[in-house]
Amino acid sequence: MAEKNTSRSPSYSLTLRVRIPNRPGLLSKVTGVIGKAGASIGAIDLVEADDDVLVRDIVVNPTGEKQGKKVVALVEGIRGVDVVHASDRTFLLHLGGKIEVISRTPIKTRDDLSMAYTPGVGRICMSIFETPENAWKLTMKRRAVAIVTDGSAVLGLGNLGPAAALPVMEGKAQLFKEFGDINAFPICLDTQQSGEIIETVTRIAPGFGAINLEDISAPRCFEIQEKLQALLDIPVFHDDQDGTAVVVLAALINAVKITKKKMKKLKVVLSGVGASGIGVTRLLLQMGVKDIVGCDRKGAIYKGRRDHMNPIKDWFASTTNPRHRKGSLKSALKGADVFIGLSAPGIVSAADLKRMGKKPIIFALANPIPEVPPEQLGFAAIVGTGRSDYPNQINNALAFPGILLGCLNVRASRITPQMLVAAAEAIAHTIPTGTLQPDYIVPSIFDRNVARMVAAAVAREAKRSRISRRSPKAPGDARYS
Amino acid sequence: MAEKNTSRSPSYSLTLRVRIPNRPGLLSKVTGVIGKAGASIGAIDLVEADDDVLVRDIVVNPTGEKQGKKVVALVEGIRGVDVVHASDRTFLLHLGGKIEVISRTPIKTRDDLSMAYTPGVGRICMSIFETPENAWKLTMKRRAVAIVTDGSAVLGLGNLGPAAALPVMEGKAQLFKEFGDINAFPICLDTQQSGEIIETVTRIAPGFGAINLEDISAPRCFEIQEKLQALLDIPVFHDDQDGTAVVVLAALINAVKITKKKMKKLKVVLSGVGASGIGVTRLLLQMGVKDIVGCDRKGAIYKGRRDHMNPIKDWFASTTNPRHRKGSLKSALKGADVFIGLSAPGIVSAADLKRMGKKPIIFALANPIPEVPPEQLGFAAIVGTGRSDYPNQINNALAFPGILLGCLNVRASRITPQMLVAAAEAIAHTIPTGTLQPDYIVPSIFDRNVARMVAAAVAREAKRSRISRRSPKAPGDARYS
Repeated sequence: MAEKNTSRSPSYSLTLRVRIPNRPGLLSKVTGVIGKAGASIGAIDLVEADDDVLVRDIVVNPTGEKQGKKVVALVEGIRGVDVVHASDRTFLLHLGGKIEVISRTPIKTRDDLSMAYTPGVGRICMSIFETPENAWKLTMKRRAVAIVTDGSAVLGLGNLGPAAALPVMEGKAQLFKEFGDINAFPICLDTQQSGEIIETVTRIAPGFGAINLEDISAPRCFEIQEKLQALLDIPVFHDDQDGTAVVVLAALINAVKITKKKMKKLKVVLSGVGASGIGVTRLLLQMGVKDIVGCDRKGAIYKGRRDHMNPIKDWFASTTNPRHRKGSLKSALKGADVFIGLSAPGIVSAADLKRMGKKPIIFALANPIPEVPPEQLGFAAIVGTGRSDYPNQINNALAFPGILLGCLNVRASRITPQMLVAAAEAIAHTIPTGTLQPDYIVPSIFDRNVARMVAAAVAREAKRSRISRRSPKAPGDARYS
Repeated sequence: MAEKNTSRSPSYSLTLRVRIPNRPGLLSKVTGVIGKAGASIGAIDLVEADDDVLVRDIVVNPTGEKQGKKVVALVEGIRGVDVVHASDRTFLLHLGGKIEVISRTPIKTRDDLSMAYTPGVGRICMSIFETPENAWKLTMKRRAVAIVTDGSAVLGLGNLGPAAALPVMEGKAQLFKEFGDINAFPICLDTQQSGEIIETVTRIAPGFGAINLEDISAPRCFEIQEKLQALLDIPVFHDDQDGTAVVVLAALINAVKITKKKMKKLKVVLSGVGASGIGVTRLLLQMGVKDIVGCDRKGAIYKGRRDHMNPIKDWFASTTNPRHRKGSLKSALKGADVFIGLSAPGIVSAADLKRMGKKPIIFALANPIPEVPPEQLGFAAIVGTGRSDYPNQINNALAFPGILLGCLNVRASRITPQMLVAAAEAIAHTIPTGTLQPDYIVPSIFDRNVARMVAAAVAREAKRSRISRRSPKAPGDARYS
């Protein structure tokens, strides 16, 4: 759960509205008890003032809800001071939802209406009826992505169901818009049956240019993605698999450059064989990496293992671990070049990771708490995490907006492993070789170049492999006579 | 089809980009041939100019595509003049679609992200998981409507399928936003099986506060709406039925006031017993109107009629036509107070309508061509059409934004006939009694008061009848501590 994180984070902050008697020294008493409780103080605004009383809004950043409650109690304990209310700023931000649907064309006059709606719209409908691919030009389909979840694996919080998953899907839609100018819309499904999910998504697909599966639990997610892609003529992306894989590969490409290792010769140990573990493994195989050992809570997965297997782990066993390693994660680490943690904090120790080979590359991506605190990994050549407060943040937001934008731009019918590799290389190359540093192997998610570069690389690869359906005359779109 | 309309309409206009030699008199030659072809001319812009050539954009409004092509041919026929391209402005407006999904909160810094997305969003998810009704406060659900179609009855164009229906659904979403500040999103279904439509909509419902069914053919639409409403705890609105019915009733309330007739004593003849005909009839019955005769292409529908019946017409026969009228629409009209046409142009003549009783009220709502041209209806006390270029435009856009806004505001679980009546009365009352005129019985769709008044009336009725689920403490929403 997010709360286990005990460092201060803007993700949990309060606005205290307090009434303070208008007497010298009282504000410093208030700020004093907040500091004593261990919370930091942000902006302080004056809301109302008269001769007797001042009303102030004080932004407080506690380490968690417990400390937040303590702060409120301490402030209320000051004689004469009254906490009018204490609002959780993250809750305030979510009131009424985080996205909205707006019009791209004015609807202010009857003339506007007669073009955007009846009777003018009738000609557009007939044009699409007669030439179905015109839907790509004349409707929202061109830029529309459905973010589909069943709420079965929401963040690291588990099976919360469709309604409780919605805030994450809205956040995802915001990221799609911000970084890819894509119009993504959450579809939260009231079913967790794979067959029903597949059926439902195929039925709602006509208005979308791509599908983004999100927070659907493994191993169901693999079957759902595969069958949907077989049924639909638009890309079916699963961010937990494909997005993570792309960013991990991007980071690895640059880590290998810095450490002067050879990609194909890497010895990789992976902790966690869920959606992201499988996605990463597929891309590594695509890159020619052979020596991959995947571990779950029972240790290494190998051909012939009997306990705690499933069809996806069977696939894993049959395509990885060529040296047939058995035993614990700790023993698998001996001599490894790369550790990729996609599991949980505490599953491995710094001492275990010290058994790795020379210049170890360590990606401890459990979120929000990494497998091992980066502070303990000083011996590693490269360290990456999923967090924004350490260097080398391996964040899916570097990948998914650009990948889907590239697909939409060329009307790709699916996403190939080659397209994912092209995306990873594009992300890696946004950092010029001369600028690469052990603590700078991936760009900032706020680097606006990234999505553009990724989209261009994905589109180029789609065209090369004839996944693209866009005619080369695309710039002439605007002519209809 | 929209094209049958032969009057000039901004829904069909062209932008001609022409290269004209820079010599006196040539522009007037160009405008001259456009006028000679019968088309009118809008704005003329200068795009480029040098000593030899001028490039101009000329907006041309022809009566239809045929005349448009003639205009282009005539202009191209002028020696030295070159039509670079002729763009249909309605097509240009549709390029890339008409709606977009945007963020309501900033996503510009890591702090923004940590509140709107991980890790902050995790607390919001848990809050909804623990208290499901919080989805109404903390997600887009509060203002989200799914516009669902199977494309089986798109405008008057027929069964065009889901993709070709999308431009209409996008237009609808624009109207929802413009008039109701509602975030509506099109869902175009790749199935026309009633059972599959019902199943699919129930599965995608969790993220929405209401469902708006659109352009689904009768009689399937009745069963779909009824079953969906039984399965879901959010309102299922069918605009073709309910929206039309509300605006017709609003117009009728004011028409009755002007003609000093009594609502319950009205003799009403209806042409067309599709979705809108049934919707109107249900609301008239709700208002206590008894004497309703519905006609299809075979004439009056009466108890015992055998040919061309279906379950909905059976319902119609059993609940209307108390005087057991048989025979043609023409004969049914004899002595009637009100004619409501929801059928097709030419189905009835002005001479037929002259057989109506004193002070006839005539709503000729076939779109875009009314059953009878209003110019021939000078004998009527009141005439209404669906068109914006005649007085008394009976337009659904007066109803649906306000009705669904009212529902969302109080988290209504369904829409009752009483709520629809409240909406109709609210629309009627936006015109003060003193201002009512035979040619002013409904407000303009651009009157911003209408949706607000309708929403308030619907919400009030929902609360009165305990359809509302919103706690009276709603204004305190903002407090979360």
